[in-house]
Amino acid sequence: MYMRHFTNKLDQLNISRMFQNDFLLTWEKTDDEIAAIFTVADALRSLRENNISAKIFDSGLAVSLFRDNSTRTRFSFGSAANLLGLALQDLDEGKSQIAHGETVRETANMVSFMADVIGIRDDMYIGKGNTYMREVAHAVEHGYRDGVLEQRPTLVNLQCDIDHPTQSMADMLHIIHHFGGVENLKGKKIAMTWAYSPSYGKPLSVPQGVIGLMTRFGMEVSLAHPKGYEVMSEVEKVATENAAKTGGKFTKTNSMAEAFEGADIVYPKSWAPFAAMEERTILYGNGDITGISDLEKTLLAQNAEHKDWECNEELMKRTKDGSALYMHCLPADITGVSCEQGEVSASVFDRYREPLYKEAGFKPYIIAAMIFLAKCKNPGGTLENLAAKGQPRWLDR
Amino acid sequence: MYMRHFTNKLDQLNISRMFQNDFLLTWEKTDDEIAAIFTVADALRSLRENNISAKIFDSGLAVSLFRDNSTRTRFSFGSAANLLGLALQDLDEGKSQIAHGETVRETANMVSFMADVIGIRDDMYIGKGNTYMREVAHAVEHGYRDGVLEQRPTLVNLQCDIDHPTQSMADMLHIIHHFGGVENLKGKKIAMTWAYSPSYGKPLSVPQGVIGLMTRFGMEVSLAHPKGYEVMSEVEKVATENAAKTGGKFTKTNSMAEAFEGADIVYPKSWAPFAAMEERTILYGNGDITGISDLEKTLLAQNAEHKDWECNEELMKRTKDGSALYMHCLPADITGVSCEQGEVSASVFDRYREPLYKEAGFKPYIIAAMIFLAKCKNPGGTLENLAAKGQPRWLDR
Amino acid sequence: MYMRHFTNKLDQLNISRMFQNDFLLTWEKTDDEIAAIFTVADALRSLRENNISAKIFDSGLAVSLFRDNSTRTRFSFGSAANLLGLALQDLDEGKSQIAHGETVRETANMVSFMADVIGIRDDMYIGKGNTYMREVAHAVEHGYRDGVLEQRPTLVNLQCDIDHPTQSMADMLHIIHHFGGVENLKGKKIAMTWAYSPSYGKPLSVPQGVIGLMTRFGMEVSLAHPKGYEVMSEVEKVATENAAKTGGKFTKTNSMAEAFEGADIVYPKSWAPFAAMEERTILYGNGDITGISDLEKTLLAQNAEHKDWECNEELMKRTKDGSALYMHCLPADITGVSCEQGEVSASVFDRYREPLYKEAGFKPYIIAAMIFLAKCKNPGGTLENLAAKGQPRWLDR
Repeated sequence: MYMRHFTNKLDQLNISRMFQNDFLLTWEKTDDEIAAIFTVADALRSLRENNISAKIFDSGLAVSLFRDNSTRTRFSFGSAANLLGLALQDLDEGKSQIAHGETVRETANMVSFMADVIGIRDDMYIGKGNTYMREVAHAVEHGYRDGVLEQRPTLVNLQCDIDHPTQSMADMLHIIHHFGGVENLKGKKIAMTWAYSPSYGKPLSVPQGVIGLMTRFGMEVSLAHPKGYEVMSEVEKVATENAAKTGGKFTKTNSMAEAFEGADIVYPKSWAPFAAMEERTILYGNGDITGISDLEKTLLAQNAEHKDWECNEELMKRTKDGSALYMHCLPADITGVSCEQGEVSASVFDRYREPLYKEAGFKPYIIAAMIFLAKCKNPGGTLENLAAKGQPRWLDR
Repeated sequence: MYMRHFTNKLDQLNISRMFQNDFLLTWEKTDDEIAAIFTVADALRSLRENNISAKIFDSGLAVSLFRDNSTRTRFSFGSAANLLGLALQDLDEGKSQIAHGETVRETANMVSFMADVIGIRDDMYIGKGNTYMREVAHAVEHGYRDGVLEQRPTLVNLQCDIDHPTQSMADMLHIIHHFGGVENLKGKKIAMTWAYSPSYGKPLSVPQGVIGLMTRFGMEVSLAHPKGYEVMSEVEKVATENAAKTGGKFTKTNSMAEAFEGADIVYPKSWAPFAAMEERTILYGNGDITGISDLEKTLLAQNAEHKDWECNEELMKRTKDGSALYMHCLPADITGVSCEQGEVSASVFDRYREPLYKEAGFKPYIIAAMIFLAKCKNPGGTLENLAAKGQPRWLDR
Repeated sequence: MYMRHFTNKLDQLNISRMFQNDFLLTWEKTDDEIAAIFTVADALRSLRENNISAKIFDSGLAVSLFRDNSTRTRFSFGSAANLLGLALQDLDEGKSQIAHGETVRETANMVSFMADVIGIRDDMYIGKGNTYMREVAHAVEHGYRDGVLEQRPTLVNLQCDIDHPTQSMADMLHIIHHFGGVENLKGKKIAMTWAYSPSYGKPLSVPQGVIGLMTRFGMEVSLAHPKGYEVMSEVEKVATENAAKTGGKFTKTNSMAEAFEGADIVYPKSWAPFAAMEERTILYGNGDITGISDLEKTLLAQNAEHKDWECNEELMKRTKDGSALYMHCLPADITGVSCEQGEVSASVFDRYREPLYKEAGFKPYIIAAMIFLAKCKNPGGTLENLAAKGQPRWLDR
């Protein structure tokens, strides 16, 4: 049976700690656990390609809490929930009574009586998002132990101030498929570089997620940005340690061209300086409107000094055989299309449209795999059962 | 078996082109295809009346994108999706990152990884709505061919600037049932007439949808409106050609009374002049606030000259035996109820409340039929299977 | 079989009137009907604890109409719907065309073509909320009889101006479980008392719901509030009559301490004076902004005279053995946590966090039981069937 291919892999992995657990940061997960996510994501996709239902829930809720706008991640979470049989229930803070002075612990329990998973996006303020997720996880763990909740909802980080694990894992699975397997990645070079955008406060979670994850596969990860656009030093430390352990490399440069040199993969994307985001968080905390407005001006002026950080044909020629895999979490700021001057030239972006969309297409399966592995005591067995049962997803004839 | 009644009909129709296709304009569909929609809508209703599940999807998403307010169509789409086993996922442009400078092609792919159907309402601007739908259809067709999407989502036009096919098809099915079959419609007269409303910019898609569809059944379709309230000439051309082909008639008049004369069916409804809507679209495009405000005043003044275009008892007496079937897409502007002076007098409206609600009740089944025929290679066989399986929708005992 | 425990109870109850009926006020229901709700709520919970699906619907919609913000009730309704197999469809009046001048009768029918249940929260204006629900119930009853609707949607009152039955029933089931059965409640004292809050217009439906329901179980219900904070006299009359019939007591006092004296249960909660809410309703009706603002000031000043109405350790000592069960519908105004001075001191609230969350946790099952009993002709038989079928809710292995 074709499912055996995936379950054989799972059998070799130590994943006992994943059951009833959360997914908050990739670097909290072992290599086996990371490998299990990829395997289950591929297995779930394979079920769908074979028109076989992957529903492990007959009923149940997937609660989403988005504190920032989102299309891709919102739809990916909704798709993953649906794939596994859960109904989406948005916790729209505007329509709720949360502003009323309610604690995180209370809200977490109140929305979880029938919740099997809670997905949270909270990426705006440094030091807040991931902390909030842990508070929610802690609250539902307690609620479950105290008998308030009949099931333990799994937390999935849909982007926080530190990491964006559903994005970096989808990106990584795209890379694995593109290069024909994780075993082919040794020595490959990926350039995670800053790029110019006319908007100034983009989250750091994508570059941090990428350097924190991609350094685990024996690749060379080159982080490039203008001076002043440093990411969190804690995550750089993670990247350095990962590289040391896996025979990879983690290098830093202030030259986009240097990072592109000989790269197999390029990921040019705008982000805000970490120090500025810390400052902004404090200004918001103090309700300092003038300070925020001043900071915005400063940052836009600072950005404008680096308009030459654009991924264009000239730079692409420097990459391996001039044909590195171009990646982006989307939406990209495309020069002459979505803005006057942006992260990437239109001709480069257009050439990579198909792989970019495929890259994005891994996210629903990554999220579904995170939920699946947190919900199934014996994930391999459950996959086999689903395949054996062969319930059609779609009666197309 | 009672399902045989419907599947026998389907067997006689050439509907091979419907599989994996969209539903954008009724006049792009053959007579067989139109007949198939009605047949499947009736079959799905029959399943439900017999408490039999019509779920052809075990999981999957129905994505809705409403660019205008809606109750009826929104609930009809949600109901149709649910009937077939799909979960509704709203693409709320406010909550998404679409404003960010993202292309239609990108958005269309990003929301479609697990979408089986996309329903769009975009009726505000002339030349835009239907065009947008075709761009989305084109994008997902490409996404499917390129392997970005594992299924080809079907596009359903939930109202555009040109046509409102789910409305006109529901209206037509109501007429068919009212007169006991499509074979009884030959020579019947339907008056699609303008009526006064105190609001000025109502879409043209309903009258256009009605004249574009109802002229296909051998009926006399009389389009009546004051001078200056012309509809799109392209659609009038469609109506004229339809009538010529099917032995029906398409006539025009500037007198409500003339249209009502001997009519079997009357459909009095306000709409905006096509030329004015074209102008408004340009003004919006230019962000010309003063121009829009001036146009609004002009249009309201123009409207106010025709307050006598009201469907009242006096006019109803002129219809066939004084008892034509009164139709409306709802909500209607009712004189003395929802406004001082409106499209219809309260006594006429009240008398037709039950048939009006039944008319609206066909819409969920019409939408479900559109999806069903786009998703089933052998729709008759699938209907037979559903009936034979006999899965109860509701365990009421 | 463990389900027999519940179905044996149901067999002894006369509940034939519940099928196809609504749930608007607890005092319209017989003791048997109230007992049936508790029994089915416990049975549904038991199914879930045993990982057995309680889906009685293969498809269908649960329509929710919230005219006030809500987290708990919104999620409880969504959870109940999901538990039984229904998909939630929000009727968001902002996104709909209802403002257009549409009647309640029309809206009710338009959203109900595939609706099995409609849940409404409308608690803001005196004399309006419950009336609105009855109009909707009446409309869908007619729609069903006229053949417009193929099923009769059940109305569930999710909080109105008079009662909050899903709250008071959940509260009561919590009490029953806490004291080990309804047979142990005879002579127990519950103090339903007003408490200070810095916000001024909280609905009366909770205290009214509590005195209207808790007086039916042979308990002593003591209603305490400062002078001027009277609740609806009609509901006090219900409470008095209930107590007379069941050998309980309904007493009133203007002293929080007196109510707490020897109480087994305390329920301290802020509410607005009924007379002021009536006045506010009239002011809103007249669009009298100045009047509303003046009333708000008056009410806040009136509130501020009673800051000593706080449930604190001092008062708790007066209760039975100093350890009465503290209850609240949440979110509570906690002194020093969510406000400077509130309904309850932080130490009391913290001590009761677990039971408070459990109290809230009964609501989804209460709502599901209300729907279940309105939808199943033979609820006991259906429960037995679900248990016998044993469809797992969650394939966790």
